[in-house]
Amino acid sequence: MMREAPNDVEISGGRLTLHWAGRPPQVLHPLWLRERCPCAECRDPGTGQRLLDAWDLPLETAVRDARLGEGRVTVVFANGHEAPFEVSELLAALGARPDERDGIELWDASLDPIPEADWRVAAEDDAALYDMLEKLRRHAFVVARNVPATPDAIADFAARIGPVRETNWGRVADVKAIPEAYDLTMTTRALEQHADNPYREPVPGYVLLHCLVNDAEGGDSTVTDGFRVAEELRRRAPDDFDALTRVRPHFRYADDDTLLENEGPLIELDSRGRVRQVRLSNRTDQVDAEDPDLLDRYYSARRQFTQLVNDPAFKVQFKLNPGDLMVMDNYRLLHGRSGYKPGTGHRHMRQLYMDRDVVGSRRKVLARRHGQDTASGA
Amino acid sequence: MMREAPNDVEISGGRLTLHWAGRPPQVLHPLWLRERCPCAECRDPGTGQRLLDAWDLPLETAVRDARLGEGRVTVVFANGHEAPFEVSELLAALGARPDERDGIELWDASLDPIPEADWRVAAEDDAALYDMLEKLRRHAFVVARNVPATPDAIADFAARIGPVRETNWGRVADVKAIPEAYDLTMTTRALEQHADNPYREPVPGYVLLHCLVNDAEGGDSTVTDGFRVAEELRRRAPDDFDALTRVRPHFRYADDDTLLENEGPLIELDSRGRVRQVRLSNRTDQVDAEDPDLLDRYYSARRQFTQLVNDPAFKVQFKLNPGDLMVMDNYRLLHGRSGYKPGTGHRHMRQLYMDRDVVGSRRKVLARRHGQDTASGA
Repeated sequence: MMREAPNDVEISGGRLTLHWAGRPPQVLHPLWLRERCPCAECRDPGTGQRLLDAWDLPLETAVRDARLGEGRVTVVFANGHEAPFEVSELLAALGARPDERDGIELWDASLDPIPEADWRVAAEDDAALYDMLEKLRRHAFVVARNVPATPDAIADFAARIGPVRETNWGRVADVKAIPEAYDLTMTTRALEQHADNPYREPVPGYVLLHCLVNDAEGGDSTVTDGFRVAEELRRRAPDDFDALTRVRPHFRYADDDTLLENEGPLIELDSRGRVRQVRLSNRTDQVDAEDPDLLDRYYSARRQFTQLVNDPAFKVQFKLNPGDLMVMDNYRLLHGRSGYKPGTGHRHMRQLYMDRDVVGSRRKVLARRHGQDTASGA
Repeated sequence: MMREAPNDVEISGGRLTLHWAGRPPQVLHPLWLRERCPCAECRDPGTGQRLLDAWDLPLETAVRDARLGEGRVTVVFANGHEAPFEVSELLAALGARPDERDGIELWDASLDPIPEADWRVAAEDDAALYDMLEKLRRHAFVVARNVPATPDAIADFAARIGPVRETNWGRVADVKAIPEAYDLTMTTRALEQHADNPYREPVPGYVLLHCLVNDAEGGDSTVTDGFRVAEELRRRAPDDFDALTRVRPHFRYADDDTLLENEGPLIELDSRGRVRQVRLSNRTDQVDAEDPDLLDRYYSARRQFTQLVNDPAFKVQFKLNPGDLMVMDNYRLLHGRSGYKPGTGHRHMRQLYMDRDVVGSRRKVLARRHGQDTASGA
């Protein structure tokens, strides 16, 4: 099982250095080691939760001794406490954590085929469900085919993944043209590429969109990889990219019973400078009346970005048919639709939201059993 | 109605300057004005949503003329389009937006009385409900009295505010000691001050905790104002404060069916440098094996912070009795409990989570009708 083990240990200034064949030595902080102690006194064998009061550990905690052997590194602290680390667990703690972003594939208009799944299989088979969720992770969307074209099927689909994010619009909302539209979604108009509901706090993590009827002229779906386009902007116009990560527009939705507000940059970065989330919603974003020179820069940058977003070179277009259910990562994917002609037929979708942890948890737990790579798993 | 109006307008470089009596002149960017045009062509009179394709507005858009009169500023753009702004609406757009943080009150152990509401009134009366939610906004918690001590009452309570955040633990979870605890909450142990579920993405915005039985010895609730304590740390030890805003521990929860992971600093700041969220969970936080010198700084800072958090000078302690329901802002409040003695009685709470937009929306909509100040309203 074990392919790698330290071949020497060294203690200096209370810190432990592990020496390995073929990789650089690693210096470990005594408190980092102490709070990970796996003994039954320090960690509940049942729940795995730490029983140790880590906050109360003396800051002067030091490593006094360490022993190698039998697949273990046994660390002895200055106060005599012994921590019996399995080398495999120590390696796992030392390795870069599996990251949501590992192995994701940025795409443009050449994406072909689009990521698909057969719900007749995935509804029953966990390996197929894992495969569908892994496609979603890598490409930010997946289209499940052969979902029953019935009003409640979307709730059954979601239930196989986890709890739904209920909002003021309920658990499941209808997307179709209605006479008294409270949102542009409920008209026959084309919708430019956008992310859903940037005015919610938190912004919904995933959107599920299920097609029941779609026989009008038009009404195609369009999707753009928001991360791909943001990277394109970073490459072509770094100053514009920078402006969009700094200016924080305000997003707002109001009706008689609801008032939703949130703010955030059009391109949000994580602590490592990678794109974490795109917010685009050309009906609800408004910037404060800031310095007109800053706004000059912002408006110009937004123009560059939205032109890329709607550029056919980055956009994929297809028609959802009855029984198709598209799952979209609302932090990365931008989506829209072409307009459709009233009177030529009908278009009726149902949609719901799910949180990021719900979808992520389901995929990671399935990855333990069905995953081919550890990147997306536990 | 109107107490304030511009007394002169000036156009320079395509920008509009408003001159007012008694306040400095304001220079407005032409696109900032253009995308707010209130005419029926640019904005859906029904939904209030923008119909104008703001992204496509020419960057060279310029103001050509402006007229004052009849409570309006009518702006004429270079292409001839006229935007008839009501002065009152323009003032609202220019004013600082109402902010969730306006008028909040940081508190310490001297808080007395604790914020309370009478549910016999607030269950029926919207003004009383608004008052309860406003106390929650200002103090980060509120205890509602006289909620029926029945298992389903917490769901009825929540329904009066909005949708529940359902998780892998369901919509409502029981908090009581059980033999096969999957979480320390389900034991009789004392719990140090913490925020709930920093391993979820997104972190739950509000926690509702309803007491059904609490007649064991001990089991008091303890609450600390996380913002107050963070500000104390900023004042006493700015370097420690800084370290806690920068190092991003990883939080994790795992059982057979669930794997939840998120990361973030113990003290998170917003774009203006104000504390936005505190994350403290001494059972689930782990830092990566970073540079030991950085970890020296982090562990020392965490010690300072957690000592303040658990300092009696900042902590308020009280016992929840059957029929009490405490609502907690999980981004600001830290909560815990004293241990209780098995065999001396029972302690049974029920809890659920709600999202920030749900609680915020309800409060803001009620504020339109019942609010005394605009700070918390629309």
